[in-house]
Amino acid sequence: MATDAMSPKITVELLRQLRQAMRNGKCIAEPIQAYIIPSGDAHQSEYIAPCDCRREFICGFNGSAGTAIVTEQHAALWTDGRYFLQASQQMDNNWTLMKMGLKETLSQEDWLISILPENSKVGVDPWIIAADQWKNMSKALSSAGHSLVAVQANLIDAIWEDRPARPNTKLIALGLKYTGLTWQDKITALRGKMAERKISWFVVTALDEIAWLFNLRGSDIEYNPVFFAYAIIGISSIKLFVDSKRLVDPAIRQHLELDSPSKPDLTVQCFPYESVFSELNAVCAALAPKDKMWICDKASCALTQVIPKAHRAAIPYTPLCLAKAVKNPTEIQGMKMAHIKDAVALCELFAWLEKEIPKGTVTEISAADKAEELRSQQKDFVGLSFPTISSVGPNGAIIHYRPLPETNRTLSLNEVYLIDSGAQYRDGTTDVTRTVHFGTPSDYEKECFTYVLKGHIAVSAAVFPNGTKGHLLDSFARAALWDSGLDYLHGTGHGVGCFLNVHEGPCGISYKTFADEPLEAGMIVSDEPGYYEDGSFGIRLENVVLVVPAKTKYNYRNRGSLTFEPLTLVPIQLKMINTDLLTQKERDWVNDYHRKCLETIGAEMERQGRKEALDWLIRETQPIV
Amino acid sequence: MATDAMSPKITVELLRQLRQAMRNGKCIAEPIQAYIIPSGDAHQSEYIAPCDCRREFICGFNGSAGTAIVTEQHAALWTDGRYFLQASQQMDNNWTLMKMGLKETLSQEDWLISILPENSKVGVDPWIIAADQWKNMSKALSSAGHSLVAVQANLIDAIWEDRPARPNTKLIALGLKYTGLTWQDKITALRGKMAERKISWFVVTALDEIAWLFNLRGSDIEYNPVFFAYAIIGISSIKLFVDSKRLVDPAIRQHLELDSPSKPDLTVQCFPYESVFSELNAVCAALAPKDKMWICDKASCALTQVIPKAHRAAIPYTPLCLAKAVKNPTEIQGMKMAHIKDAVALCELFAWLEKEIPKGTVTEISAADKAEELRSQQKDFVGLSFPTISSVGPNGAIIHYRPLPETNRTLSLNEVYLIDSGAQYRDGTTDVTRTVHFGTPSDYEKECFTYVLKGHIAVSAAVFPNGTKGHLLDSFARAALWDSGLDYLHGTGHGVGCFLNVHEGPCGISYKTFADEPLEAGMIVSDEPGYYEDGSFGIRLENVVLVVPAKTKYNYRNRGSLTFEPLTLVPIQLKMINTDLLTQKERDWVNDYHRKCLETIGAEMERQGRKEALDWLIRETQPIV
Repeated sequence: MATDAMSPKITVELLRQLRQAMRNGKCIAEPIQAYIIPSGDAHQSEYIAPCDCRREFICGFNGSAGTAIVTEQHAALWTDGRYFLQASQQMDNNWTLMKMGLKETLSQEDWLISILPENSKVGVDPWIIAADQWKNMSKALSSAGHSLVAVQANLIDAIWEDRPARPNTKLIALGLKYTGLTWQDKITALRGKMAERKISWFVVTALDEIAWLFNLRGSDIEYNPVFFAYAIIGISSIKLFVDSKRLVDPAIRQHLELDSPSKPDLTVQCFPYESVFSELNAVCAALAPKDKMWICDKASCALTQVIPKAHRAAIPYTPLCLAKAVKNPTEIQGMKMAHIKDAVALCELFAWLEKEIPKGTVTEISAADKAEELRSQQKDFVGLSFPTISSVGPNGAIIHYRPLPETNRTLSLNEVYLIDSGAQYRDGTTDVTRTVHFGTPSDYEKECFTYVLKGHIAVSAAVFPNGTKGHLLDSFARAALWDSGLDYLHGTGHGVGCFLNVHEGPCGISYKTFADEPLEAGMIVSDEPGYYEDGSFGIRLENVVLVVPAKTKYNYRNRGSLTFEPLTLVPIQLKMINTDLLTQKERDWVNDYHRKCLETIGAEMERQGRKEALDWLIRETQPIV
Repeated sequence: MATDAMSPKITVELLRQLRQAMRNGKCIAEPIQAYIIPSGDAHQSEYIAPCDCRREFICGFNGSAGTAIVTEQHAALWTDGRYFLQASQQMDNNWTLMKMGLKETLSQEDWLISILPENSKVGVDPWIIAADQWKNMSKALSSAGHSLVAVQANLIDAIWEDRPARPNTKLIALGLKYTGLTWQDKITALRGKMAERKISWFVVTALDEIAWLFNLRGSDIEYNPVFFAYAIIGISSIKLFVDSKRLVDPAIRQHLELDSPSKPDLTVQCFPYESVFSELNAVCAALAPKDKMWICDKASCALTQVIPKAHRAAIPYTPLCLAKAVKNPTEIQGMKMAHIKDAVALCELFAWLEKEIPKGTVTEISAADKAEELRSQQKDFVGLSFPTISSVGPNGAIIHYRPLPETNRTLSLNEVYLIDSGAQYRDGTTDVTRTVHFGTPSDYEKECFTYVLKGHIAVSAAVFPNGTKGHLLDSFARAALWDSGLDYLHGTGHGVGCFLNVHEGPCGISYKTFADEPLEAGMIVSDEPGYYEDGSFGIRLENVVLVVPAKTKYNYRNRGSLTFEPLTLVPIQLKMINTDLLTQKERDWVNDYHRKCLETIGAEMERQGRKEALDWLIRETQPIV
């Protein structure tokens, strides 16, 4: 990432330049009184390439979520509970931190309305703002006499002198062994869904959906194996927008059948990435009166508005998003293998830490590096799936902490250590958090850990009817914490891609009720409650879990039931548990889980000849009595 | 209610007449291809007066929720899981039952779109449909090439020969002893909220909000102590629309200070009920450019559309709805008293039933009558708060069952008995459900009852942070049922008024995430999980509970915690509980609850000299060991 310091970025001069640009006829048709800088790129990606880190460039805060707004007088940044501490450390006092989720915090709209002079114009780059956000913001501003205007040339780019170039990495094609379905099968299934709904075109803008659909991967965005592209899928045509240099590779040409298509309606037409706007315009110009075109309401406002309203069918998530979320048997098998390999590496790390920490030489950064080194020894390793959160003591309370030289603490026998990490393997993506103590945890640390564990188990062992949405499970994760007056300010789980983004929709487990679809067998989500004591420690316990059918005593209205099967198989440190606080059911769960860890990961360790890690695993999976 | 039979209503001739009216130039400017008959009145009341039971008139189904749609070829009724059985019994085979909440059931919009010829017109009475429903329906129909049109003269009224007159009952004024606040205080507080939001007018359309605001009650709608009225509240004026005959009573004139107002801005101007449309038009014509007018988006489309869009501030619930939901100390005290008196009556009923049932002479109807008789002996009794659900065996599985002569079963020692009942007292409204067995329940009945009890306790004993919305608690009520593959198809709780509607917004506990506001101390909701086995039995366990601050060991971010205090104090039948399935915490909860029942209700029984009931209470509140 561009900014690597936890000391605040000095933004006086940048804000002066931006405000000048907001008034300047060169950059903009007429002056604007406020400029919104969202955190995404033109594909509304969560993780973004350096060239798209505009919000970080202007304010210094480099977390994954946040929106900056600059007016003539003010500069403010909205972010959520995961990032309150980090944002307050990375921004100088030209910026006001707007803590989302707290009752007293104004929304962006209300804040703008409260400070703007009458009839103000608020600008935003229409490629960076999602269509639904544009709509809401525009409506709120209009109702107060202001207006939201599309500023075509990005004002941050205009003042960003050494802005990096857009990445253009080599593509790799995934065979059936990894994907379970050819891209042709996926296109055909998608067209079936389109026909069902009488849709003639579908504009695909999310990078992971394009990667999944074509069974291709790239590395344009760190940690996310995606590549910059758009696709427009018709009932009998396939338009892929990607830099032509990427299509020279014979393996890719063969994979996409560019030189000898098997069928006319499965012929991929390739266009330059930048031509999506003009090509979409051309497609729209040729639409029949009844033609309908799908586009996600999270797609950019710029692209969405190309489609005439009468032809536009905006959807909260796309059929690809849902198809991708329900893993097929090959993907499930791959995810299981990836998690087994990943557990071997993580167990090795813990065994190594136990030996090394007493020497006083292990730091947050060196521990993270060691974890990466051990993972990289595993088969089909590609890279990390997100920056490792390796945090000791008070750093653990910074929910999305990333160790930097100036914050780097040494691991010791006296503080809680939280490591949230994961990797991309060709067969799957992992994401696991363990919180451990290498000396003797305090009673309070154990108490809090045990509440978090109880929440983790409550979700993992939950049985629920088919058709249940993930948000209905969120409170299970919190009940034990709530009982003692504690809580955590983040969701409980997110969808996980298969050798794709570590965060994906449309399902999750959160108190926020977004447009989530019901959970179904084959979906994969995380289960990660936590507890954070600012200035002291952080606790989080995260497994990736697979939604599976549950066997129940009865079967009301033949609906069937679901539950979760943990894919992550890494021991939970017994030393951190106050077993008196567990019910017998919870103790049984821990013992069953540890038995499974020992059986599955132990067998793989033996196969790999990793004796030391196996000894550690055997010791760490002793049953609670 | 108008239709009292559980045998289907014969609708051939009515449908013929309605379809004729849909084509007829006398009733309608141009023919319509479909006509929507919602279940509400012009105030979107849940319970309605006989003159407003248009949906029941046309199809026969008399449950509290449901929408009928008639096209040239089809007639269909949408209702939810509480009413599937009842609706299927009350409608003849001209009607298709559309079971809401099941995956395969089309929405009204999708159904219309699937069957209507191109460019169809769908009609609806704009006074009966809420503005938000109009908007959604209109949008969906437009996107498919149809249109929604307002039919000013109601087509059901046109074919309904002996339609009852609109009720016009005597008003009663409530003093400070019952309300805790004068209507002048309430108006002043409301104006404070309006000023905060820069709102100059507020159109009040919900009958319970008008009754609450003016500290008046009526009996226009059975079970709901409300009266037909509208109000338009300005920053310095108060317009009340109500039949002038009701304002002759000197007590009412004095209460409203009609003859000698204390202050100009607290002077009530009275207008005929019917003149709301023209008066609102006049107010709107005189608005200043920046004036904003609040109206609930549940208000009628007809009234909403009078307000020009630029002046309209539509809100999902009104400040009165929220103010009314948070009970003041006087109201809380009144609700507690009402529940104590109600518990005395219900305990007496159970003691009486125990003696009488073996004789074989008690029926669902006579038990309900006895309950009403016993309640009516209590001080300040006004009437029932809803039709008593008194149901034996398979009738218990009809969630909103009401015993009728032709369905009336005899209570026996062999079947489960479910009674869901409540009353209006001048000091409060009650709503309680108990499920009991007078012989020996089967193991399966006990098992199901115990899961329901575990869910009831899980909600009642839940501790949760300030700011938590009720829907986040719903899954607690279901977890024990889900574990065994069981569930129930209704929400877990609803707001309860204070000598007002037994169902009120804006809070509740449901898997449906409606626009609910966070729970706060002073709110009163029900906690009523259930389980229903079609054709066999029904189980429901309902207490009315008060939201109160909770003492917790810690206090994360000083947010404070909440929990519930049961207001309903009626023993839970121990015979129905399989105590092996309870945790120690759950057993303690039951014992604490029963101790509180004995102390509080026992003392009142002694005061009232109801010895037999007291003996019964002592026996029924023995602790579980």
